[in-house]
Amino acid sequence: MDTGSIESAKIKRVGVGVITDIEDELAIEEPLEIQLAYESGTGFIKKNIAVTMRTPGSDEELAVGFLFTEGIIKNRNEIKGIDQPNENSVLVRLNEGVKRHFNTISRNFYTTSSCGICGKASIDAVTVLSEYYYANDDIVLPARLFHELPLKLRKQQEIFKNTGGLHAAALFDLNGNFIELREDVGRHNALDKIIGRSLMNENMPMDNVILLLSGRAGFELIQKAIMAGIKIIAAIGAPSSLAVEFARECNITLIGFLKNERFNIYTGEQRIRMSL
Amino acid sequence: MDTGSIESAKIKRVGVGVITDIEDELAIEEPLEIQLAYESGTGFIKKNIAVTMRTPGSDEELAVGFLFTEGIIKNRNEIKGIDQPNENSVLVRLNEGVKRHFNTISRNFYTTSSCGICGKASIDAVTVLSEYYYANDDIVLPARLFHELPLKLRKQQEIFKNTGGLHAAALFDLNGNFIELREDVGRHNALDKIIGRSLMNENMPMDNVILLLSGRAGFELIQKAIMAGIKIIAAIGAPSSLAVEFARECNITLIGFLKNERFNIYTGEQRIRMSL
Repeated sequence: MDTGSIESAKIKRVGVGVITDIEDELAIEEPLEIQLAYESGTGFIKKNIAVTMRTPGSDEELAVGFLFTEGIIKNRNEIKGIDQPNENSVLVRLNEGVKRHFNTISRNFYTTSSCGICGKASIDAVTVLSEYYYANDDIVLPARLFHELPLKLRKQQEIFKNTGGLHAAALFDLNGNFIELREDVGRHNALDKIIGRSLMNENMPMDNVILLLSGRAGFELIQKAIMAGIKIIAAIGAPSSLAVEFARECNITLIGFLKNERFNIYTGEQRIRMSL
Repeated sequence: MDTGSIESAKIKRVGVGVITDIEDELAIEEPLEIQLAYESGTGFIKKNIAVTMRTPGSDEELAVGFLFTEGIIKNRNEIKGIDQPNENSVLVRLNEGVKRHFNTISRNFYTTSSCGICGKASIDAVTVLSEYYYANDDIVLPARLFHELPLKLRKQQEIFKNTGGLHAAALFDLNGNFIELREDVGRHNALDKIIGRSLMNENMPMDNVILLLSGRAGFELIQKAIMAGIKIIAAIGAPSSLAVEFARECNITLIGFLKNERFNIYTGEQRIRMSL
């Protein structure tokens, strides 16, 4: 675990009729500014792309993952280098000749539909951008593999026990072996961190892993997963209506309310077999 | 509860070695476009301010609350009218003569600090904007009042039981009586809805209520509460480091991990007395 992700605080714990001074641990939240340097007609220019409230640690991964899942960069080869000008900024420098993609895309790119704004248009906007979502596969996994994931996540997510304030995104291979975990006060940041890590390792598309989310699954998380080519998503919490619609449209296996003994399959059940 | 906030889905429930077809309920998530019409030099113009992924219902409240907590509108008197051009758009029309405030402010207004980007600068940026955060008070509440809130919230939040997918923001008066509840797939939306309702009722500042949040408390939620002059915030989940720092700076009472029998006071303990 990153030592910079929690801090101590003196607080009061109140029981029924009793109050105690205790030391508690807080998940650290600080802004991170994501900057991009790219070639323009007259040379390189620098642009502030976004500020996200995040838990410090894996900042470069977060910046790269964010730029990738927002469709601003396409692959690792576009990146010349990454600097951290100060503790709350990351500057991603693109190679000469790399066309910047972000002029056509904004943070709210799901707004730009000619037929108005709706869930379907939001989905269409993402699927046009993603290079990976259409890929076919013949993955079939035993249900018992998923029954074992919550415990494996808890074992890895030691820090969660302490603060109760961090979301996690974890990767497992198709045999259920743990690969990697990232945590953050923002669930979208935890996912961007782990996707950024995979991009930097040139593990794209991420079609040979299971993504496990510690909380709920909404549109934004599915969007990021689809940009990375992830096919199998399991969430400890509930999915939203648009998350389910999006997963169905893109042939994703989406599992929710994942517990040791039970889980729900919302879409893509052809990848799960029941035999123990 | 809004009938439009949940929808049914046929899903597979997987137990150990057994699979069942069931009907499940999903929290609806759809985009909402927030538009503003305001006077410019040459007449009225319309601008798209933001798109937020929200659970339908209380859309006008959400739009008004968002514009208020982002510092774009100051009070109800600035609003001439509110239209809903379609089911996923709200247009807020400002009165003639109302200066638009949003030119100086962006969604990421906590970036604009001369001394760089950090948590402290983020806090300062908000406190400059809020008209209410500095107000003094002599509120003192018995601890037992808070012990009773989780059960009261659960009773009100019937829908949560069904989908497990909605966040809630609820208001109670200083005697612990329930006032109002709003729910959404996005916790920031639930809070914007309830603040928007209070603005439309001209109950500003909201310094005579307790805000109860069903989940965790991060910077963004504290920011919105402070814009509305809320003094007492209780969260069922954990606060972040920046939430605690922000609450301390603004003399907010911030309670976390609120359970029937126990809670933590992070800041502003002078407002809580132990006598039963």
